[in-house]
Amino acid sequence: MPRTEPARGMRDFLPEDVRRRAHVIAVITQVYERYGFEPLETPAVENLETLLGKYGDEGNKLIYKILKRGEHEKTGEADLALRYDLTVPLARVMAEHHAKLPRLFKRYQIQPVWRADRPARGRFREFYQCDVDAMGSTSPVIEAELCAAVAEAMTELGFSDFVMRLNHRQLLTALLNAAGVGAELHASALVALDKLDKIGVDGVAAELGSRGIGEEARGALLSYFALDGNDVLDRLDAIVRDDTGRAAVANLRAIMALAAPTRAGTRMRVDPSLARGLSYYTGAIMEVNVADLAGSLGGGGRYDNLVGMFSGQAIPACGFSLGLERILVVMGERGMFPPSLAASPADVMVTLWNEAAQGDALALASELRQTGLRVDVYPDADKLGKQFKYAASRHVPLVTVVGEDERAAATVTIKDLRSGGQEVIPRGEAGPHIRQALERIP
Amino acid sequence: MPRTEPARGMRDFLPEDVRRRAHVIAVITQVYERYGFEPLETPAVENLETLLGKYGDEGNKLIYKILKRGEHEKTGEADLALRYDLTVPLARVMAEHHAKLPRLFKRYQIQPVWRADRPARGRFREFYQCDVDAMGSTSPVIEAELCAAVAEAMTELGFSDFVMRLNHRQLLTALLNAAGVGAELHASALVALDKLDKIGVDGVAAELGSRGIGEEARGALLSYFALDGNDVLDRLDAIVRDDTGRAAVANLRAIMALAAPTRAGTRMRVDPSLARGLSYYTGAIMEVNVADLAGSLGGGGRYDNLVGMFSGQAIPACGFSLGLERILVVMGERGMFPPSLAASPADVMVTLWNEAAQGDALALASELRQTGLRVDVYPDADKLGKQFKYAASRHVPLVTVVGEDERAAATVTIKDLRSGGQEVIPRGEAGPHIRQALERIP
Repeated sequence: MPRTEPARGMRDFLPEDVRRRAHVIAVITQVYERYGFEPLETPAVENLETLLGKYGDEGNKLIYKILKRGEHEKTGEADLALRYDLTVPLARVMAEHHAKLPRLFKRYQIQPVWRADRPARGRFREFYQCDVDAMGSTSPVIEAELCAAVAEAMTELGFSDFVMRLNHRQLLTALLNAAGVGAELHASALVALDKLDKIGVDGVAAELGSRGIGEEARGALLSYFALDGNDVLDRLDAIVRDDTGRAAVANLRAIMALAAPTRAGTRMRVDPSLARGLSYYTGAIMEVNVADLAGSLGGGGRYDNLVGMFSGQAIPACGFSLGLERILVVMGERGMFPPSLAASPADVMVTLWNEAAQGDALALASELRQTGLRVDVYPDADKLGKQFKYAASRHVPLVTVVGEDERAAATVTIKDLRSGGQEVIPRGEAGPHIRQALERIP
Repeated sequence: MPRTEPARGMRDFLPEDVRRRAHVIAVITQVYERYGFEPLETPAVENLETLLGKYGDEGNKLIYKILKRGEHEKTGEADLALRYDLTVPLARVMAEHHAKLPRLFKRYQIQPVWRADRPARGRFREFYQCDVDAMGSTSPVIEAELCAAVAEAMTELGFSDFVMRLNHRQLLTALLNAAGVGAELHASALVALDKLDKIGVDGVAAELGSRGIGEEARGALLSYFALDGNDVLDRLDAIVRDDTGRAAVANLRAIMALAAPTRAGTRMRVDPSLARGLSYYTGAIMEVNVADLAGSLGGGGRYDNLVGMFSGQAIPACGFSLGLERILVVMGERGMFPPSLAASPADVMVTLWNEAAQGDALALASELRQTGLRVDVYPDADKLGKQFKYAASRHVPLVTVVGEDERAAATVTIKDLRSGGQEVIPRGEAGPHIRQALERIP
């Protein structure tokens, strides 16, 4: 027998899986549209040169490359590749379609990406990103609106315990300066800091040491990173020693004030230890966390130099990416999906009395569907008991029976498989009756 | 400057494109769910061996193959490939997950597929298929329900002039027998017949001749294929000479009778010349056509031997595939999209009076969004005229202004950019007022 499993690290989504995924995507989409973001979609396949060199050496190795076709296939060369993230395609679209796009372009994009990473719990080789980005303005209104949109999406998904951490790339630089870390060690220090979630304060301290940062600087840095509370911005302002650092503190102050009256208001905390791995951030950075998941459900920040990479024009940008797979994992573990999503494929199943009644069964199904009901029809004239059993196994709550008596009297018997009860109803009233029955608690 | 176009034969979808695509997908999804079909999704990437040999020699050449990764990359060998259709993955899923799937599995799947075909008008290398299939029953109820679902989807999309043509693979065989065409020429004759749309009756006659089918047989065949009208099944029944042929006619008669009371009732025509290219069909075949498109908007049929290819168990199946890209082309050309889809990214844009008013602007946006409105916020304290102009260029119908006076009086000025009119409204009534204004015809 041939192999039937999906490719390594990839997944088939059976109906209940798809319903859960579609639910989360629909909630996020609806919220992002309420904030004036517009949908964008790009092809799964990009020219290889579009992607190569954009994700560092590690990233290059994880890109799925596609063989040339036809006579060129045997060269073993690749000319295309699978989408690796949604940011590089966005930058390409900004250059390619700039004449058709508004000056302030706010887009969301919810599509799969592919990375040949080692599969692990919650890490797949095909996974969805939910990106939302605003291009064309450096105003802190953008950061505040993004945080508000993400917080509203999280809230509408049912999360009541998330925190949005906020920091600033240039504040990190200013803190490193204030601690006396030389500029040549900044990047290395941030790599160590980015592991705080995984290795803890002692681990970071050790790693800072092994990266050549002296004890005094380490001590200062760790005391800065531990700052929190309502006056954290005041205290940071007193620590930083240059204009860039003070501007970063002022920017964070503006973002916090602007976000206060929004859905993000009660969620946001300035956290000077937040580093975010990606090197392209230039301003504010943020991350959404819940207590029961190491790592984040999403993150983002301002990156004013990236979107212009294909056009050669600097375009300010700020964005946020939610990880669909992680959201689904946490929602699944916590039982956060609405019960209706696990429900049956139909509201009612029309049974088949005998083969001669097939036409009448389809006519009844058609009548019921015109009232908006989701209706399945049992296709074979099996014994009624077998048909009921099948409907029950699919969790279809109701079935209809039209036998000789019902047919003669223009009625329908509606059987509730949850209670076992049944009623005989005039055929024209079947639709409304079924609707009422569905609303009764089983 | 680097290249910025998408890969050859692939497309970026800007917001209006995405809205149109999402509209069509949502209508089709809703109808299929009303018929009891459940969603399935499979990975874009399959193991190469899963796809190879399933689509004939021509198909093999059109499969996008993915290079092995890491140290194996330099071998130039492929081990993965992009999904080529939705049927082979369905067959794989039926084998892999059979224990979790119902005995009668009705699924729809709307996902992109990739083929390295020569790009042409309406033919792309990444395109969506909308497949709907019912597995596990040989009852003609299945065919009738599929036709009803497809007809309802077409109707709800706004098509009022489509025809669903119906034929039967074994009727075609019986007609070839009746015309005296030897069994060894059947496959070749069907290839010629399948070109009827493109080359017309005379073309098919010539091609049948060049394929070695004598004049008398050609004449008989073409007279059979031209049959139509209400009595077409009676006349076909009189022509066919074997039990298989008569059973095929009886099957078509049953399907037509069962579909009569459904949404497909007035759409269906038996057309003995319909051939459908794919060789895997075993029973009824069908196709949806509109007058202004050569070729079909979709097609399908019964294929009782294919879904078992991975499990080794025969599983009867019948399905239909609608081509999203062709539907979009025809709807676009005919102007069939609801005007709301072309609409603005927001119902209202909150303008910024000055930088100090940023916080209040976000607060107002938050209030309006809580009433369900789609709200954009202008992020920079540009001149009001520039802000209005920007909103108008994005087709946002309404803007709010909160200046010193409005702020002092707790009011909002709401300006209708369509009419130029404006009104001052108590702030608490802004949401309902905007809703009313949106309902007014511009």
